[in-house]
Amino acid sequence: MIIGIVGLGTVGFGTLDILTKEKERLEKEIGEEVVVKYGCALENPGLPEGVIYTTDFHDVLDDESVDVVVELIGGLTFAKTIIMGAIEKGKHVVTANKALLAHDGQEIFTAAKEKGVNVFYEASVGGGIPVVVPAKESLIANNIKKIEGILNGTTNFILTLMETDNLDFKEALAIAQDLGFVEADASLDLDGFDAAHKIAILAMNAFHIFFDFDKIHTTGIRQVTKQDMDYAKKLGYRIKLIAQAEKLDNSIGIDVSPTLVPMSDIVGNVMQAYNVVEITSDYVENVLFYGKGAGRYVTASAVVSDIMKTHNKELWTHDYTYTDAITPIEDSRFYVRSSQPLDIDYEESYSMDDQYIYITTKQNLNALKLQLSGVKYTLLKVRDEK
Amino acid sequence: MIIGIVGLGTVGFGTLDILTKEKERLEKEIGEEVVVKYGCALENPGLPEGVIYTTDFHDVLDDESVDVVVELIGGLTFAKTIIMGAIEKGKHVVTANKALLAHDGQEIFTAAKEKGVNVFYEASVGGGIPVVVPAKESLIANNIKKIEGILNGTTNFILTLMETDNLDFKEALAIAQDLGFVEADASLDLDGFDAAHKIAILAMNAFHIFFDFDKIHTTGIRQVTKQDMDYAKKLGYRIKLIAQAEKLDNSIGIDVSPTLVPMSDIVGNVMQAYNVVEITSDYVENVLFYGKGAGRYVTASAVVSDIMKTHNKELWTHDYTYTDAITPIEDSRFYVRSSQPLDIDYEESYSMDDQYIYITTKQNLNALKLQLSGVKYTLLKVRDEK
Repeated sequence: MIIGIVGLGTVGFGTLDILTKEKERLEKEIGEEVVVKYGCALENPGLPEGVIYTTDFHDVLDDESVDVVVELIGGLTFAKTIIMGAIEKGKHVVTANKALLAHDGQEIFTAAKEKGVNVFYEASVGGGIPVVVPAKESLIANNIKKIEGILNGTTNFILTLMETDNLDFKEALAIAQDLGFVEADASLDLDGFDAAHKIAILAMNAFHIFFDFDKIHTTGIRQVTKQDMDYAKKLGYRIKLIAQAEKLDNSIGIDVSPTLVPMSDIVGNVMQAYNVVEITSDYVENVLFYGKGAGRYVTASAVVSDIMKTHNKELWTHDYTYTDAITPIEDSRFYVRSSQPLDIDYEESYSMDDQYIYITTKQNLNALKLQLSGVKYTLLKVRDEK
Repeated sequence: MIIGIVGLGTVGFGTLDILTKEKERLEKEIGEEVVVKYGCALENPGLPEGVIYTTDFHDVLDDESVDVVVELIGGLTFAKTIIMGAIEKGKHVVTANKALLAHDGQEIFTAAKEKGVNVFYEASVGGGIPVVVPAKESLIANNIKKIEGILNGTTNFILTLMETDNLDFKEALAIAQDLGFVEADASLDLDGFDAAHKIAILAMNAFHIFFDFDKIHTTGIRQVTKQDMDYAKKLGYRIKLIAQAEKLDNSIGIDVSPTLVPMSDIVGNVMQAYNVVEITSDYVENVLFYGKGAGRYVTASAVVSDIMKTHNKELWTHDYTYTDAITPIEDSRFYVRSSQPLDIDYEESYSMDDQYIYITTKQNLNALKLQLSGVKYTLLKVRDEK
């Protein structure tokens, strides 16, 4: 597999880095050489030995040995030229370009079909969360009814900050901007267009339709007030920017709207820059995919899986090694309850009904048990803080 | 694609039903005929026209036209004979048999490799939740560090019932048994062996190892008391049966243990018979898969996706239809706030700081806006109750 990467910014460089570091393992997994032949960008970020640096994407497209073109420059103009050019040359394409696919998906996929090549785009929705491929392949039995999700990490970060730090929208936005969490064109995040691009892509695949992106009704979070957050909370809700797409009687309903989500609901517990996608369908009912929606290696992980997917691997390898070294996981925090006070390292404790209850620090189970010898106690594991 | 289904119980019949109802759509999706030729079981559940009923699995194995054998009888004896026989005959295998793969995975996968066939088993873990395939393919870039999950719906249902209905273990178990939620061999669920089978399969793939299933340290939920649940809750935790596997310094740590999980954590909010799997790795950090872990069509959905996966499809189809009918989703519950009391249909309401706050019943946005004409208000969507 010969790869050309066009765009060596955050995600492009992350992709190159993973392909370099994991080369041997990936080759073993797919049973084929994995070679990055070109890195194409306006500036050379320092390429590994053997990777040809070029500023001209035609070098990549014109090289007949290149099997896959990875487009990671973004935007609607050059990116489209590169993708259409790669398809024209019979090369597979991997892209994270949600705006382009939301706007020009029909043209791109139609061209790809004519040329018999694949365009893969797992990284365009939900960063590294597997959702595009699982929705298209793992849920193939199902007629999808509805997709809902928190698809923009920046706005979810701002909404979380408003809640946890008791800030109004402008104060939280300023912090998010200081942290570099907001795109150069802030409107993409704040007015819901980024989320709209992503729900457009998910809706396209789920409902097997093409449509004009501009038909999606999009409302962002600028008008969400701290006051409404507080009022909603009293009723058991959090405000989240929800993108949804649903099969209606005479149309496909799609919109992006700030929405009250019950706190008892998994989606209501998605905080910070995390993303979530919930898919409701006839056979599998509702399944939900959750993870970080952005980040160099997070998104590059999805790009790399798409690159590997262009290699038409016939068989799953199970070339695993037998091992005897299977043990319980003995380092953990523990819940310990006893009818006597205990001399152990703990994070939290209280006593009630003549019982002493402890959440210990992270420690070794066997060492802890030694400290408890002679004592009657109940002990359970405590999951690591996330 | 010619399919033989062996085992026509809950999941087997569900699989046959989906393959029958969705035949045309699936054929379009993979570009090949999808034919169920045999249904093999001790009793005939009533097969669709054209499907040959047999009680003898040799009929399926000996028919050279059969490409895929779907093993859904469960257990360690006949199921293994059928799977090994199918592999020997050069047929792909799809199975939901977690116990068999946990015990004899090495033998089965080694035989499959020799014969150049695939054994797929998405349905063996987490029912219909896509997790086996995404972990193996979508996360291919990553070195997986840790897997944690709620992998047994029955015990999670019992633990949820203990909490919500203030019951002790035996009372909740009796209800779960009345509802048919507990396996004939209750120990599989209650003592954690079912969860152990599933974490064994996930660990095998994540860490590329084979090992003896009996080395997994497994503790069930029999000793979980209502009292400890209440004490844990005061500290912000719920008790869940957690299966985990982790790369340790000198071993692979695997165990199944009742564990306190923070209520602020997504995993701590997985209730009823839902399952969840969280995978932590180097590039994509943590991703989480959630859904129903059991049920006829839920599990059959995963079986069908595996069957389709045995067809080595080269290209993704995007044979989608252009549509103009894209609308906002206007039927919803709404949050409405106003400085005057409103005459609208609502589920909940309260007033505070001279503001009147309503969660409306599900209704049409435009109809609601008509009722609010002349009133100054703030309006947001409210997500459907799950």
